[in-house]
Amino acid sequence: MIATRTDLAMERMDADSSFPGADVRRWEEGDVQLSEVVIRTEEAAKNLGKPRGSYLTLECRLLREHDPDARLAMANLLGEELSRMVAPSDDAPVLVVGLGNRGVTPDALGPAAIDKTLVTRHMLGSEYAQSGMRSVCAIAPGVLGVTGIETVEMVESLTHKLHPKAVLCIDSLAARDSGRIGCTVQISNTGIQPGSGVGNHRRPLTKESLGVDVIAVGVPTVIYAATLARDAFALLSGEGGHEEALTSMERELLGTDLGNLIVTPRDIDAIVKNCATLIAGGINRALQPSLNASEIAAMMD
Amino acid sequence: MIATRTDLAMERMDADSSFPGADVRRWEEGDVQLSEVVIRTEEAAKNLGKPRGSYLTLECRLLREHDPDARLAMANLLGEELSRMVAPSDDAPVLVVGLGNRGVTPDALGPAAIDKTLVTRHMLGSEYAQSGMRSVCAIAPGVLGVTGIETVEMVESLTHKLHPKAVLCIDSLAARDSGRIGCTVQISNTGIQPGSGVGNHRRPLTKESLGVDVIAVGVPTVIYAATLARDAFALLSGEGGHEEALTSMERELLGTDLGNLIVTPRDIDAIVKNCATLIAGGINRALQPSLNASEIAAMMD
Amino acid sequence: MIATRTDLAMERMDADSSFPGADVRRWEEGDVQLSEVVIRTEEAAKNLGKPRGSYLTLECRLLREHDPDARLAMANLLGEELSRMVAPSDDAPVLVVGLGNRGVTPDALGPAAIDKTLVTRHMLGSEYAQSGMRSVCAIAPGVLGVTGIETVEMVESLTHKLHPKAVLCIDSLAARDSGRIGCTVQISNTGIQPGSGVGNHRRPLTKESLGVDVIAVGVPTVIYAATLARDAFALLSGEGGHEEALTSMERELLGTDLGNLIVTPRDIDAIVKNCATLIAGGINRALQPSLNASEIAAMMD
Amino acid sequence: MIATRTDLAMERMDADSSFPGADVRRWEEGDVQLSEVVIRTEEAAKNLGKPRGSYLTLECRLLREHDPDARLAMANLLGEELSRMVAPSDDAPVLVVGLGNRGVTPDALGPAAIDKTLVTRHMLGSEYAQSGMRSVCAIAPGVLGVTGIETVEMVESLTHKLHPKAVLCIDSLAARDSGRIGCTVQISNTGIQPGSGVGNHRRPLTKESLGVDVIAVGVPTVIYAATLARDAFALLSGEGGHEEALTSMERELLGTDLGNLIVTPRDIDAIVKNCATLIAGGINRALQPSLNASEIAAMMD
Repeated sequence: MIATRTDLAMERMDADSSFPGADVRRWEEGDVQLSEVVIRTEEAAKNLGKPRGSYLTLECRLLREHDPDARLAMANLLGEELSRMVAPSDDAPVLVVGLGNRGVTPDALGPAAIDKTLVTRHMLGSEYAQSGMRSVCAIAPGVLGVTGIETVEMVESLTHKLHPKAVLCIDSLAARDSGRIGCTVQISNTGIQPGSGVGNHRRPLTKESLGVDVIAVGVPTVIYAATLARDAFALLSGEGGHEEALTSMERELLGTDLGNLIVTPRDIDAIVKNCATLIAGGINRALQPSLNASEIAAMMD
Repeated sequence: MIATRTDLAMERMDADSSFPGADVRRWEEGDVQLSEVVIRTEEAAKNLGKPRGSYLTLECRLLREHDPDARLAMANLLGEELSRMVAPSDDAPVLVVGLGNRGVTPDALGPAAIDKTLVTRHMLGSEYAQSGMRSVCAIAPGVLGVTGIETVEMVESLTHKLHPKAVLCIDSLAARDSGRIGCTVQISNTGIQPGSGVGNHRRPLTKESLGVDVIAVGVPTVIYAATLARDAFALLSGEGGHEEALTSMERELLGTDLGNLIVTPRDIDAIVKNCATLIAGGINRALQPSLNASEIAAMMD
Repeated sequence: MIATRTDLAMERMDADSSFPGADVRRWEEGDVQLSEVVIRTEEAAKNLGKPRGSYLTLECRLLREHDPDARLAMANLLGEELSRMVAPSDDAPVLVVGLGNRGVTPDALGPAAIDKTLVTRHMLGSEYAQSGMRSVCAIAPGVLGVTGIETVEMVESLTHKLHPKAVLCIDSLAARDSGRIGCTVQISNTGIQPGSGVGNHRRPLTKESLGVDVIAVGVPTVIYAATLARDAFALLSGEGGHEEALTSMERELLGTDLGNLIVTPRDIDAIVKNCATLIAGGINRALQPSLNASEIAAMMD
Repeated sequence: MIATRTDLAMERMDADSSFPGADVRRWEEGDVQLSEVVIRTEEAAKNLGKPRGSYLTLECRLLREHDPDARLAMANLLGEELSRMVAPSDDAPVLVVGLGNRGVTPDALGPAAIDKTLVTRHMLGSEYAQSGMRSVCAIAPGVLGVTGIETVEMVESLTHKLHPKAVLCIDSLAARDSGRIGCTVQISNTGIQPGSGVGNHRRPLTKESLGVDVIAVGVPTVIYAATLARDAFALLSGEGGHEEALTSMERELLGTDLGNLIVTPRDIDAIVKNCATLIAGGINRALQPSLNASEIAAMMD
């Protein structure tokens, strides 16, 4: 029953907004469309191919036009939502993890966002600390082929050492609809699943595996080639109704060389840069409510 | 009449190996398949969508498996062919130009190859020069959005200043067949055409525009999304015969958002790194026949 | 008579603020100390080791503490001064040149500042242009060992091609006093001299060589090892008075291995990042008076 | 009694080659000078300012001239020595750690060497594994200001997770004699001490702290400014004999701004690149005796 491959829970619900065991709520704030999918039952989770939990989506097509007001509005909303999800501050740090591969542009969102995230853990107790500053540390674990160490091994070992309050993972996602690339942010409390993301994680990063809350923030930067082929076929054949035939076709394509291909916009470098700024902006707002934007900027240079 | 979009002349000839005004020759050397397309008449040029001239292709599927022997064999053949195409040495330098955008992995082949090309122009006359060393300079002009200067403006101005013997351009290409990504090298004496490459050059880099021989070396790193959709449709609809319907469909898709999408393998970082090493190896062999591989390696660190 | 080696005209005048043929004026604005040295005669130029012209210095020790207000004040003053020096806008672009070597941290200021300079030349006439936007292009020519092309060759050839209104060069400088590293900006209308900068330019970039106004903006990031040794000796020997003995000693040291050594702070990465932001900020203010800071930021992502 | 600041044990012994509780042995192999300092007693350790253990130095001035034969000879000797120090292979991996800061050129040796180290842990058991391949993983932990995590915390947590056979640390060092920069390699079995290295590590990485053998490989890339000043003073004052006066002077200088300054050659980018290739070459030889150089090169692209 799982339709086409996407990391966005909201795209699973597009066809049918009422699904047994799952709720979807949609609203708008200014130019931003929000939607929240809550998957309540194991059966719904199985049918939708996503674990139980909450998936919030913020979408604003103006982001693709590098509209400064749109980015600011998105960063503010993102900051508000994240501050709701990360438990109030005590001394334990928040560990921000930038997943993905710096060497493959559409997979570089996580590391690029880490570069713009304010890290403070080493300042606390020093002259550089400011009152109300929350402890934040950050890592881009790199890719298996470069380190020989799985991302999950690295995050697990740091979690055991640093005892963070929460782990906040940033990742590049795959969407079904190319129109969502670079203008949609998904926040979920379900962590990172095997097979998700552009680089396709092998093992989960979840509360079960790490022992602390895991919040995932992602932006679609690719669609899969098999999805593209399927949708082109549906469009051109005018046979949108034969969902099962299309899905079986897509699965067949995934078994070919197509399964290894990703589809991405030509200007993916600007998209990743823009979205990394947006996400880091939201994270910095959420984790350092006592600092304003120019104080944060000055501390990062 | 132009079928699907590709930068490889050889792929234009696949369907029909005898084309009025154009010849194709195919042969093998070890594990490498070679083909040479020579477009002789203006009419053939128009029909094939490529200017008159010679297009040599070297192909070896083992390259995708990072086979060291395959890469060495390809680099040697490439070196031989390039040394045939670049006129014998006098004091004038060869200007090697790495086209493309370092920030978009599948478009980074040119700049990455420049990093591994031995540059000697500044050493000639110094203690570091070796006898027989040929004058080589190199530039990666970057992208318009970063410099505000078109690649062609930069290459033209340097050509007028440095009076090179030849300009050798390296670029990422688009193929029709995803199986050719990362394992095919095309060398042509026709320069770079508008609309070609991953980044889609706006103006030509040719003997006409620059006043010196322009040799282009490229490797396909992407296919266009519209091509993929077309081929998936042909495959699935079993209607391979209706070429005209497919072509008109592809054109229609190019007018949609699809026209801005590229399709590339997930491991494009390793492919670009491997092919940059291969191409720079071939160029270094061709331009510095008096130096062996370990001398070249030592001079580059 | 030339004392110790420095690229700051103001440091030449420190010992003797009245020098025949040269004037110095000092004042303050908020936390910023300004000084202007004007060298009027050829004899003064010879004695001071700097060509005739104007050298403005802005200095603020708070910059080293990453004080956001200090950086903003410096960027504003820099913007005002630069807008006085760059002739009013017509259609001709301003060519901003980031001198130096990205691979050597204290020499990377120019390229780093280029990355944060708003480039607009390619947008003019497009939908992205805004009214009042001035044409700016930018290049980091890299280093001779990488390209085989001298910086001055590249700038000359681009100047002949693009006919800029002015060339604005950014470079890392050597100071005499380590306390000035990272907190002093020098602006001059005399261009770049041979032997100046961290990488020691071989040939001039001046109005004489290029045919257009050349404005140089620099920040000291190093002192020379021979200068350090001389100053340590003066300090420790208590023989500050024997200037001639010290100068001859310094010259002797420059002939040894010391001549190839530079002295720089451990946190030079943060200093270069901070000063690149400051200088690009000043340039963007001066060249785009019709855009505000957040519009500029949004256009750069 | 500790003389001038250096990370090379061999430089401590220069003045006096027989020291109670410490032995030094010197020999040559081809163009390479070797020396081994063994510190046997706690008293010698205290007097020399280095922990008990063995310090092997390989030195070849031809390295600075980028002599390919010199680099090969050094890499071979380094490979032999390292294979003696790393216990014979079982299934446990060797964890290679590249200490230092990519953003500060003379401190970038560790991360640069990691980029050229063959990582295999993820291949074992896959089709890419070759018989006799030893398990290697590698990490460049970055710097505290970027991650908020101390290097030692990251290495400790990975050591507890991965249970490596040994930890092999690569670091940039400070020398006393600028002539040793870029042409000397020190290997020791004593790990990394607080206050050593260019970036000055805060906490030890030793067998005591990690529970496994820790081998340190380093190359001097800087000298300290206070050392330079001291040596210049000694040279110029002709008072080489008053060692105590000089040492007290150096200590005084370290308390000034000088304590934060490092001295490095202008061409430090080429030195770091060359030495990273050399060290990674030695490590790859030592850890993968069953693979030849071209197999290793092919696996790394």
